[in-house]
Amino acid sequence: MVYFLTMTNLTDINDTLSLEIKKLNDFLKKVTTTDVPLINALSSHMIDSGGKRIRPIIVFLISKIMSNDNKVIESAAIIELIHAATLLHDDVVDQSDIRHNINTANKVWGNDSAVLVGDFLYSRAFELIVEINRNKVYKILAETTNKISQGEVMQLMYKEKIIEDIEKYTEIVYLKTGKLFEASALVAVDIAECEDSDWARNFGKNFGIAYQLRNDYLDYFGDDNQTGKNIAEDLSEGKSTLPLIHSYINSSGKDKMTIKNIFDKKIVSDTDKLREIFYRNESDKYTLEEIDKYSQNAIKALDSLDVDNSKNLIDLTRYCSTRTR
Amino acid sequence: MVYFLTMTNLTDINDTLSLEIKKLNDFLKKVTTTDVPLINALSSHMIDSGGKRIRPIIVFLISKIMSNDNKVIESAAIIELIHAATLLHDDVVDQSDIRHNINTANKVWGNDSAVLVGDFLYSRAFELIVEINRNKVYKILAETTNKISQGEVMQLMYKEKIIEDIEKYTEIVYLKTGKLFEASALVAVDIAECEDSDWARNFGKNFGIAYQLRNDYLDYFGDDNQTGKNIAEDLSEGKSTLPLIHSYINSSGKDKMTIKNIFDKKIVSDTDKLREIFYRNESDKYTLEEIDKYSQNAIKALDSLDVDNSKNLIDLTRYCSTRTR
Repeated sequence: MVYFLTMTNLTDINDTLSLEIKKLNDFLKKVTTTDVPLINALSSHMIDSGGKRIRPIIVFLISKIMSNDNKVIESAAIIELIHAATLLHDDVVDQSDIRHNINTANKVWGNDSAVLVGDFLYSRAFELIVEINRNKVYKILAETTNKISQGEVMQLMYKEKIIEDIEKYTEIVYLKTGKLFEASALVAVDIAECEDSDWARNFGKNFGIAYQLRNDYLDYFGDDNQTGKNIAEDLSEGKSTLPLIHSYINSSGKDKMTIKNIFDKKIVSDTDKLREIFYRNESDKYTLEEIDKYSQNAIKALDSLDVDNSKNLIDLTRYCSTRTR
Repeated sequence: MVYFLTMTNLTDINDTLSLEIKKLNDFLKKVTTTDVPLINALSSHMIDSGGKRIRPIIVFLISKIMSNDNKVIESAAIIELIHAATLLHDDVVDQSDIRHNINTANKVWGNDSAVLVGDFLYSRAFELIVEINRNKVYKILAETTNKISQGEVMQLMYKEKIIEDIEKYTEIVYLKTGKLFEASALVAVDIAECEDSDWARNFGKNFGIAYQLRNDYLDYFGDDNQTGKNIAEDLSEGKSTLPLIHSYINSSGKDKMTIKNIFDKKIVSDTDKLREIFYRNESDKYTLEEIDKYSQNAIKALDSLDVDNSKNLIDLTRYCSTRTR
C-alpha cells in the first residue's frame, strides 16, 4: 500500500493557473449578473464562497496538456455553474446551514430563493453551451446533469437507511459526484478537438469517486475548523457514507446495534462512540485505502500522456485525495 | 369590447389530436422511466395529474399547419417536461399542497424529492434536445428556461409586497409563463424548418400572457371545485396578481388600507371583502379586458395564416381565455 505524500495546499497549481482562474472568476461574475438583484446576490454568494474550483482546474490542466486555448474559460465556467446549481439544490435537500465556514444560501435567503437561483444557474450553463457550439459538449453535460439528479434521488431514497452494499454506494457516489469530474475531463478533451477520450473518462471518473470518498472520510475524521462544515454532518442528515457502511457491514452484536441506534437517532453527540467502532473495524483505514485505490486508478489513466504533461494532474489527484479541507 | 363565447372544454381539439396526445403520453412515460423508483413515482404523478397539455397542443396544431410530422412528439414532450419541472419547483417555492384537485408532489413526497426530480425532468428535457439536433431549438429552450427562472425570482422578490406597476407585473407574467408558450410556438416552427417565426412568437407570447392572467382571474373569481386549487391561493402565498394590483392602484383611503391589510396578513377568510372592493373598482372587468386584449393580439398574430389553418389555434385561444378551470 502506497500512501501519498500529503500536499497541504493547491498553491503551486493555482500559481500556474492564476490567469485562468482570474478570467474564470470574471467570466462567472459577468454571466450571472442580471437585472434581478436577488439572482446577483445569490450568484455572488455561490461564486465567491470559497470553493476550490477543482473542476475548472481539471479543464485548465487538460487544456494546457492539449495546447488548447479555445473555449476553455467558457467550458470551465459552465461546469462550475452546474456545480454551483447542484450545491444550491443539495443544501435545500439536506437543509444544510453551513458550507466552507459560511452560511449556506438557503440559510441566508431561504429555500425558495435557493431552488430558483439554482434553476437560474443550471439554465445559464445550458445557454452558454449554445455558444460553445459543440454537439458533444452539449451531450456530455446534458447526460451528466441528468445522472447527477439520478444519483441525488438514489441517495435520497436511502435517507435514514444504512446502505449495506458498497457497490451500490459507489454507484451513487459516481453519479452524484464522479460524473461532473468525468464531464470536466471529457469536455476539456472535446473542445481541444481530440477524439481519444478514454483516458479522460477514466481519470475524471476515478478522481471524482476518490474526491467524494475523501469528503466521506473528512466528515468523520476531519477537523471541522478546516473542512468548514459541521462534523458528522452526514450522520445528522441521515446519510450513510463509506466509513459507516463498512463498519456496519463488518460489525455484529452490540457494535452493529450501536451503529444502527446512533444512525437511526442521528445522535451527533455520540460521534466519538461511532468513531471508536470505526477504528475497531479499521473502517478509517479501509476508507483511506479506497480513496487511494481510486486515486491510483485516476493516475494510471494518465499513463498514455507524457510524464511532463501529467505532472500537474497527478499533483492535483494527490492533493485532493489527502486534503484536510 | 368583444367578449369571446365561452368554450366549455377542449373536446374538439383533443379529438383532432387524440393520436398525438396518446403518443405524447407514451413517450413521456418512456423517457421518465428509470432504475430509480422515486423518480418514476414522481414523474408519473406529474405526467398523469391532469394537466391540460396546452403547450404540446400548440406544438401539435402548428405542426399540422406546417404539415410537419418530424420531431413533433419529441418537441412537445420536451416542453411538457420543462413545464412539469417548473411546476415541481414552483410548488416547493410556494409551499403549495394542491393542484388539479390532487395533492402536490412536494406534499406527498417532500420538498427534497420535488427539487431533485424537478432537476431530473429539466435535465431529461435537455438530453432529449440533443436528439432533436437543431441548434435553434436548443437555443430557444435554454433561453426560455433561464428567463422562466428570472421571472420566478422576480416574483419571489415581490413576495409579500404589492406590485404597484402593471407594466412590471406584465413583464413577470411574460417571463414566468408567457415564455414557455412562446417557445412552444417557436420550436414548432423551427422543427418544420420554417424561417418565418414572427407570427409564432407574437402568438405564443400573447397567448401565454392571457393564459396567466386567466389564472389570476380564476384565483379570485373562479370556482375552486373547477379550478382544482384553493381559492385565493395567490393571496395566501403573498403574491399580488392583476385583480389585486389594479384594485390597489385605483383605490384610496379605506379601501386601499383594507386591501393592504388583507394582503399583508394573508386573511384568506376575507376574500369576500376583497372581491367587493375589486368589483367596486371594476378590477374583475379590467382583468377580463386585459385577458381579452392579449388573446386578441394572439389571434391577430395568426392573420398571415389561412383561415382554415388558424381555426384550431383561434379556438384554443378562445377556450383558454374563457376557461373555468
